[in-house]
Amino acid sequence: MLYKEFSIYVDMAVEARDLIRGAADQEIPGVKEDVEQLEHIKVTTITILNPSGAEKMDRPIGTYVTIESPPLKINDPYIRDEIVAKMEQSMQAMIGDHLKPQDTVLLVGLGNWRAVADALGPKFIEYSPITRHYHSYAPDALVEGMRPSCGIAPGVLGITGLETFEVIKGIVEKIKPALLVVVDALAAQNVNRIGTSIQMSNTGIQPGSGVGNARHAIRQEDLGVPVIAIGCPTIVSAAVIANEAVKKFCLNSGAMFNENTSLSSIKEILSPFGGSMGVTPKEIDEIIENSARIISMGVAKSLFPGISEEQLELYAT
Amino acid sequence: MLYKEFSIYVDMAVEARDLIRGAADQEIPGVKEDVEQLEHIKVTTITILNPSGAEKMDRPIGTYVTIESPPLKINDPYIRDEIVAKMEQSMQAMIGDHLKPQDTVLLVGLGNWRAVADALGPKFIEYSPITRHYHSYAPDALVEGMRPSCGIAPGVLGITGLETFEVIKGIVEKIKPALLVVVDALAAQNVNRIGTSIQMSNTGIQPGSGVGNARHAIRQEDLGVPVIAIGCPTIVSAAVIANEAVKKFCLNSGAMFNENTSLSSIKEILSPFGGSMGVTPKEIDEIIENSARIISMGVAKSLFPGISEEQLELYAT
Amino acid sequence: MLYKEFSIYVDMAVEARDLIRGAADQEIPGVKEDVEQLEHIKVTTITILNPSGAEKMDRPIGTYVTIESPPLKINDPYIRDEIVAKMEQSMQAMIGDHLKPQDTVLLVGLGNWRAVADALGPKFIEYSPITRHYHSYAPDALVEGMRPSCGIAPGVLGITGLETFEVIKGIVEKIKPALLVVVDALAAQNVNRIGTSIQMSNTGIQPGSGVGNARHAIRQEDLGVPVIAIGCPTIVSAAVIANEAVKKFCLNSGAMFNENTSLSSIKEILSPFGGSMGVTPKEIDEIIENSARIISMGVAKSLFPGISEEQLELYAT
Amino acid sequence: MLYKEFSIYVDMAVEARDLIRGAADQEIPGVKEDVEQLEHIKVTTITILNPSGAEKMDRPIGTYVTIESPPLKINDPYIRDEIVAKMEQSMQAMIGDHLKPQDTVLLVGLGNWRAVADALGPKFIEYSPITRHYHSYAPDALVEGMRPSCGIAPGVLGITGLETFEVIKGIVEKIKPALLVVVDALAAQNVNRIGTSIQMSNTGIQPGSGVGNARHAIRQEDLGVPVIAIGCPTIVSAAVIANEAVKKFCLNSGAMFNENTSLSSIKEILSPFGGSMGVTPKEIDEIIENSARIISMGVAKSLFPGISEEQLELYAT
Repeated sequence: MLYKEFSIYVDMAVEARDLIRGAADQEIPGVKEDVEQLEHIKVTTITILNPSGAEKMDRPIGTYVTIESPPLKINDPYIRDEIVAKMEQSMQAMIGDHLKPQDTVLLVGLGNWRAVADALGPKFIEYSPITRHYHSYAPDALVEGMRPSCGIAPGVLGITGLETFEVIKGIVEKIKPALLVVVDALAAQNVNRIGTSIQMSNTGIQPGSGVGNARHAIRQEDLGVPVIAIGCPTIVSAAVIANEAVKKFCLNSGAMFNENTSLSSIKEILSPFGGSMGVTPKEIDEIIENSARIISMGVAKSLFPGISEEQLELYAT
Repeated sequence: MLYKEFSIYVDMAVEARDLIRGAADQEIPGVKEDVEQLEHIKVTTITILNPSGAEKMDRPIGTYVTIESPPLKINDPYIRDEIVAKMEQSMQAMIGDHLKPQDTVLLVGLGNWRAVADALGPKFIEYSPITRHYHSYAPDALVEGMRPSCGIAPGVLGITGLETFEVIKGIVEKIKPALLVVVDALAAQNVNRIGTSIQMSNTGIQPGSGVGNARHAIRQEDLGVPVIAIGCPTIVSAAVIANEAVKKFCLNSGAMFNENTSLSSIKEILSPFGGSMGVTPKEIDEIIENSARIISMGVAKSLFPGISEEQLELYAT
Repeated sequence: MLYKEFSIYVDMAVEARDLIRGAADQEIPGVKEDVEQLEHIKVTTITILNPSGAEKMDRPIGTYVTIESPPLKINDPYIRDEIVAKMEQSMQAMIGDHLKPQDTVLLVGLGNWRAVADALGPKFIEYSPITRHYHSYAPDALVEGMRPSCGIAPGVLGITGLETFEVIKGIVEKIKPALLVVVDALAAQNVNRIGTSIQMSNTGIQPGSGVGNARHAIRQEDLGVPVIAIGCPTIVSAAVIANEAVKKFCLNSGAMFNENTSLSSIKEILSPFGGSMGVTPKEIDEIIENSARIISMGVAKSLFPGISEEQLELYAT
Repeated sequence: MLYKEFSIYVDMAVEARDLIRGAADQEIPGVKEDVEQLEHIKVTTITILNPSGAEKMDRPIGTYVTIESPPLKINDPYIRDEIVAKMEQSMQAMIGDHLKPQDTVLLVGLGNWRAVADALGPKFIEYSPITRHYHSYAPDALVEGMRPSCGIAPGVLGITGLETFEVIKGIVEKIKPALLVVVDALAAQNVNRIGTSIQMSNTGIQPGSGVGNARHAIRQEDLGVPVIAIGCPTIVSAAVIANEAVKKFCLNSGAMFNENTSLSSIKEILSPFGGSMGVTPKEIDEIIENSARIISMGVAKSLFPGISEEQLELYAT
C-alpha cells in the first residue's frame, strides 16, 4: 500500500478500499460491502471474507463498520441520537451472544491525554460508566442488571516506556474480562473525515496503526478475549495532504504526477519532523470532546441494555 | 490507633510515633530512632525492628526515613539540592546491592491526576526519566550506563474500577522489573507538615493508607519485587483538624477533653461528606509541583548514578 | 459579624440571616423573607429593605435569591430543569425592563481556573453562549433575536497583579455593556451547602467576599452598569468547621463554649496557612462542572429569551 | 505578498525578507540587516528604515531581532543561557532609557490556552514574575529594586467575544503602564523554524498576524505606550506546506510551477477547514513549554536588572 516511505498506515477500511479500487472503481475479490443510508448518517459495512481480501486490504478478516455523519462538532442532538442507536446496534451484532449479563468488560482508551488530537481514547474512559468496584464494595449503588465494567488509559510508549500490549495483557490476565472495547484516534487520508466518521471493527487494533502507535496488535489471538476496536479520524498526516496537493496540481495543470518524486520532495520539506507531523483543524478539542461523548454512550448502551442515558451518565467518572 | 471512627490511618511514621509516645515521650519497644540535622533539613530514621514494634506502630518491620525541610513551596535551590542528595543516599542504602546496572525499574505514581492534592504520584511519573523504550528501539539515544526505567500512573479505583494492585501485579508479571518505586500523596495529622516533609520506606504501601487509597498492599511479599515507597503529606483530614481544635480548646479553656464526644460531634458537622473531606492550603498546586520535581530527581539520581541532572531531565516525558 | 479574626465574610445571605437570628429565631428589622417550595427545590428570597437591615446583614440593600436543591453532583435532569427555569425567572425579575433586545451583556467569571474549587467563574464563561463577535463579523451565523454577549475571566490578583475591578472597569468603559452578570465561587458556613445552593443577587459582589477575593466591590455605583451576582458555595473555611466542631462538642459534653478561646485555639492549629485553608469535598470537580453548566444555562435562557437550549449550546466556546 | 488567497500573513521578518529577495538574493531598499553568530545561536537584526522598506516588507518601520538556535525542545542549559542573555540585551536596547525604576510594566500573553500550539502567550504570563500587588499590599515581600509588573492573557475573540485590543486598551487606561511586552505564537513558512526561532520587535503586533489573530494592531500609536512584541513560530499553515511541496515537486520533476494553480488545488483539498488548518509537530507541548520559560526569563532579566534567576522564579505565579 501507499506511503510506506513515511510509514503511513491507512487506518480506515473505507479509505483503504477507495485507494485500492482507484478511479476504475473495480470490485475487490474477497471483500463485501453494504451501504445503508439513514436519515442523517450513512453506514458502510465492509466485510473482509478471506485471506485474499485481507492481503489486498492490508488488514485482518472481519467486519468494519463506518458511520459517516455531518460534522460532529456541530452538536446536533438528532444526529447524535441516530449515531448512538446505530453504534449500539452494530456493537450488539459484533458481540452476538458471547457476553453474559454478569461478564466483565474492560474498556481501553489508547493515546496520549496530553496531546489534544490523541486524547480520544482517554476521554472515552472518562465518559464511560465504570461499575466494577461497586460490585465489590457497594453493590446496592448499582442499577439492577448492571454488569461490571472497568477502564484504563495505558498511555503511550514514549511516555511510559511500556508497550501498550504489555499493560493490557497484564491486566487481562488479572481481571479476566469477557470482552475488550478499545478506542483510539485514527489518521485519515482526507481532512473531510475529521470529526465526521466513526469506525468500528471486530478485529482489534493493528500494529503501527492509529495515532497512539501500538507496536503490538491488540487482538483476540494474543489476548484470548474478543476485542472490538472503535476509532475516529482526528488528524491527517502532513505528508498525505502535501501528496494530495501535488496530485491535484498535476491534474489541474496537466503535469505528469509521479508519486516517488512527490514523496521525496515532501520529505525534504517536512524534515526534521518527517512523517510525524499531523494536520488538525483548530476545532479539534471540541471534535474530540463530542466524539468521545458519543462513542462512550454508544458503547455504554450496548453493554448495559435497558438502562437509560441519564442513569449511565451517573456512573461516568 | 486513633480515628478508627473516620477510618483515618496515620500515614507518617514520625506522626504515629508522636501519637504513641504521647506527652510522656516514652520509648517504644522494638522501635529505633536516629535524628540527623543537616544544614537546611532534618532527617529522622525510624527503624521498626520486630513484630512487637510493628504492632505498636501499626506498620511493617522496616526503615522509614523522613526528611523535614523549610516549606518546599519556596523553591530554594540550596534546600532542594540538599534534599535530592539525601534522597539519593537513602534510596541507595535501601536498594543496597540488589540492583544490577541493566536491571529494569518500574516507577508507579499512585493517585488521581484530576484532583490537585492527589496528583503527586502522576506528576512524579511525568518528571522522571523513562528509558526502557530506547533500549528496545533506539539504544543510541541513551547515555552510556542508563538502565531501563518505565513508569505508570494506574489511576484510582473510583475512576478505573480496577484495584491498583491488580494493575501493578499484571504489569510486574509482564515486564519483570528488579525494583518498584511507588510515590503517593499522604495525609498528615498537622497542616505544618504539608509541603515540608518527604517519607521514604522500604516496606511498600499499606492498605487503606495514602490519599490514593490502595485497598491491597503494594509490597514485596505479594509482588515478588522489592518496593520503595515515597510520599509527601498534601492534605489533612478535616476531622483531624477539628479534633485537634477541640483538644486545644479544652486545654486552653480548662474543659475536659473526651475523644469519643469530640469525634461524634465532628461527625455531625462533616456529614454528608464525612471523613473524605480534606483540608489543603491554597498553594497546594505549587507544593505538589515542586515536591514532584524534587522527588523525581532524588529517585533518578539514585537509579542512574553518575548521570547529570541536565541529562536526566532530557529523558523526562 | 463573626470570624473577623480570620477575615471570614459570610457570603450567603441565608447564612448571615441564620447567624443573626440565632436560636431565638427573631425577626430582623428591615429584612423581608419569602420561601417558596417547588417540587425539587426550595427558593428563599431575602430582601434587604433599608440601611438598618443592610447594617445588620452586613450587605447592601437589594434582593438575594437562594435556590436550595438536592446535591447537584447527582446530575438529575428534572432537578436541573427546575433550577434553570427558576434562575431564568429570577434573573428576569432582577433585570426588569432595563435590557433592550440589542443591548450587550458582559459576563464575568471571577476566580482562579488553576484551583479546582475556585474555577466556577471561569467555567461559567466557558459554557455560556458568546455572540458579540458574530454581530461584527458574521451576523448570518446568529439566530434571529440573539443579543451581543461577551465574557471574560479576569483571573485573581495573586496571579495577574491586577485588581479585578481595574480589569472589569477598563473593559466596561470600552464596550459599554447594559448589564454585567458576575459569577464567583462562595465560601459557606456549612459543608451541606456545597453543591446544593445557588445565590443570585442584584447588588453586585462585595469587597472581601468570595473565594476569588475581589478587594474592590463590583457593583453598579462604581461601574455605572447594573450587576447581577451569582455564586455557589464550593468551600468551607477550615476555621469555620473547627469552630463548629468546638461548639458542638461543648453542647454535647456540657462544657461552656467561648468563641474567643475557640478561635485562638484554632489559630494555633491552622498556622502557618491560617484562614486561607479551605475544606472541600473530593467530588468538588464534578460539583463545579455541573454547577457551572446549570448556571450558564439559567443565565443564557434569561438573556436570550425564546432560544432553545440546543441552539444556545452551539454558541458556547 | 503571497498567500492572500488563504489570508496568510508572513509573521517573521526574516521569512518576509527571504520571500522578497527570492533566488536572486537582491538587496531590499530601505531595509538594513545585521547578522551576529554567537557560540550556539545566530542573531539577525532587520531594521526597516523608511516607508519604502515598510511597504516592501509589509510591516512597520522598526527593529526586528530574530534569534535562531538549535531545537529548543532539547533543553540544553548552555543554549538557554545564551538565548536569555541575548534577549535581555536586545530588550534593553529596545527599551533604551524610557523605563524608570518604579515604572509599571504590563505583560500580555495573546492566544488561546486551550489550544496547545496557541498557548505560548498564556504560558509566558504563567512563568513571568508578577509583583504589582506586592507593591500595594506587601511591599516587604519584594526584593530591593523590583518594579511593579502585572500580566494578563486576554483570550481570543472567538472565545470571549471581545477584541484583544479593547481589553488591553481598557486595562492600559486604568493602570497606566510605561511599557507593554506582548507575547504570541507565530505562524512560520517552514517547519524547521518551529521551536528554533524567537522574534522580538519594537513595533507591536500587526492586525491579522499571529495565531491569536488580533484584528486590531497592538501598538504604541493606538495605546500611547511603547510595545515590545515577542513571538515564536509554533505552526505552519497546511496550505503553505502543500504549496512548498508542489513547488519542490515541480523543481524535482521539471514541471512548470504555477502558484495560482497550486493554491486553487490546495484549496480543494483543504476544504472544509481551509486556511485555518495548521501543521504542528507532535512535540509541540514541550516546545511551547520550553520556549515560554526561556522567553519569560529573557524578559524578566531585562525588566528586573540585577535580580537573580532564582529570585525571579519565586515571583512567578
